[in-house]
Amino acid sequence: MKIAIDGMGGDNAPKSNVEGVVSAIKEYNIDIIITGDKDVLEREFANYEFDRSKLEIVHTTEIIENEDKPVKAIRSKKDSSMVVALRLVKEGKADAVVSAGNTGALLAGGLFVVGRIKGIDRPCLCPAIPNVKRGMTIIADGGANADCKPRNLVEFAAMTNIYSKKVLGIENPRISLANVGAEEGKGNDLMKKSYEELKNMDINFIGNLEARDVINAKTDVIVCDGFTGNILLKSAEGVAMSVMGLLKETFLSSTKGKIGAMLLKDDLRKLKSFMDYAEYGGAPLLGVNGGVIKAHGSSNSKAIKNAINQGIKFAKGNVLEEIEDFVQSFKEDNEE
Amino acid sequence: MKIAIDGMGGDNAPKSNVEGVVSAIKEYNIDIIITGDKDVLEREFANYEFDRSKLEIVHTTEIIENEDKPVKAIRSKKDSSMVVALRLVKEGKADAVVSAGNTGALLAGGLFVVGRIKGIDRPCLCPAIPNVKRGMTIIADGGANADCKPRNLVEFAAMTNIYSKKVLGIENPRISLANVGAEEGKGNDLMKKSYEELKNMDINFIGNLEARDVINAKTDVIVCDGFTGNILLKSAEGVAMSVMGLLKETFLSSTKGKIGAMLLKDDLRKLKSFMDYAEYGGAPLLGVNGGVIKAHGSSNSKAIKNAINQGIKFAKGNVLEEIEDFVQSFKEDNEE
Repeated sequence: MKIAIDGMGGDNAPKSNVEGVVSAIKEYNIDIIITGDKDVLEREFANYEFDRSKLEIVHTTEIIENEDKPVKAIRSKKDSSMVVALRLVKEGKADAVVSAGNTGALLAGGLFVVGRIKGIDRPCLCPAIPNVKRGMTIIADGGANADCKPRNLVEFAAMTNIYSKKVLGIENPRISLANVGAEEGKGNDLMKKSYEELKNMDINFIGNLEARDVINAKTDVIVCDGFTGNILLKSAEGVAMSVMGLLKETFLSSTKGKIGAMLLKDDLRKLKSFMDYAEYGGAPLLGVNGGVIKAHGSSNSKAIKNAINQGIKFAKGNVLEEIEDFVQSFKEDNEE
Repeated sequence: MKIAIDGMGGDNAPKSNVEGVVSAIKEYNIDIIITGDKDVLEREFANYEFDRSKLEIVHTTEIIENEDKPVKAIRSKKDSSMVVALRLVKEGKADAVVSAGNTGALLAGGLFVVGRIKGIDRPCLCPAIPNVKRGMTIIADGGANADCKPRNLVEFAAMTNIYSKKVLGIENPRISLANVGAEEGKGNDLMKKSYEELKNMDINFIGNLEARDVINAKTDVIVCDGFTGNILLKSAEGVAMSVMGLLKETFLSSTKGKIGAMLLKDDLRKLKSFMDYAEYGGAPLLGVNGGVIKAHGSSNSKAIKNAINQGIKFAKGNVLEEIEDFVQSFKEDNEE
């Protein structure tokens, strides 16, 4: 098992990436190939003691920045840490790849460097948001495809069903459709047509779900177009962060508040950890011909380590083969 | 000035509706026509002392329930408190109408009983969500139209611009487009095309806004199709409610937590009031030929009173005439 990692991608790269790699090697005893400036990476790794035989550094000379235009960056920065890491998966030199870099570039790289699984129309990005049961809920698509057809949502549902079983270990994942009401027949044209398709699929489709119930752990996966997924996710993120900010402000505005907050320190930390993305690793890009895990841009070492673990499970779970099987059976069903 | 109110609509009707009416008569010295079962309403009003000459009760025999199919209910329950209240506005007997009843039915009633303003393609429902600056942000459309064309978003922007000035007293309302990124050219097909239209309008268009920034008071109005608006709003509501729930659970889980929570009681109440819909009145239905205010289904008397105040400002601000002026100038611009 060998995982590739983009050493220079992410707000805290290369420090967090290197630290995450060291933790992953120690914890999972796997082989890692990291891409990036060799001198810089060597200096970082020198701070840690670990089994160096598990690590390979592939020197790259370019970095894709957050401000770079995704498609242009992938095409022009051929020796960037991200493109080279993606190529390692494409060429079978690594079993999966993790990057915390430019999301748009990673999506473009997934398409142009790694390539789609034959028969899949559109790959989807599947971030997870924490729910009140201390679990997580997958949004598919979380932002890769702004405009979708019902066929795309069918693919998203099938692929996340496989991913949830094989990587997250959920036996019979509940899959729902993002909508404005629970009843059949609700929503926009896309959702009405997609409902008809999803209810006939061989998955545990639990119907429409309102956005307010995503955090209430009523589903394991919520399926939608990438525009809707982004709105749902970012709206939730914005409120969670603002409420935590207001809470802090409220507590610090009086002496009584400060004493109260001190007493509650541990409890508040628990609450904060519920909203901590680092706990949950990264978002898989499903539908491309290799394991590609997008770690959060602000990933710390723990988030990187967890994303590497996702990559390991992705490869071990034969997710790609399962998706290919779905494509085959889907094709046969539609030829009947 | 005369405001009509659906006396039987809402989870707390008729009690909260009656109490809200009494407060509004006292505070704003206006005339109210309330629709509903006369005996039931009389019994409720008997609990309060106020100037009865300001109140008229119009007896109705039917109630539209939350479970009723909207269009069917409006067409078949002609003597319902909601339909009769809407008809009062249509016939010019009231200057605006407030209802806390079935949202879908009120939308249908707005279209079929009150009717559209000539030249407006689609009316929009404009709920507001609280923001961190203790103000509010309008979502337009918040759920009336699941599928929209760019033309609809142009109308939503123009109408909320007028409403924000005339009813909310915002001098130069910031109007943004809900999107997945701030840069021009982002988003789905609808948003790309709508951006082109909005940037050429005579409004303070501040460009695309990500869903996470709605709560941060970066805009006064966010324009989108009703499907997206519903997802944005409900996702925010769900997280706000869940975080408050988790907070409570966390505080009550230990003695230290309980003491801390007691010390923080006043501060926590302040935080809760930030998320209190009652403070903010109702959502106007813009584009129909009369002032129609949808109060929250769970409105208490304060929310009803505030929604009545919105109706007063709507009528005083000549919002309808201003929308008609926009339609006229828009028509002329497109004929040039």
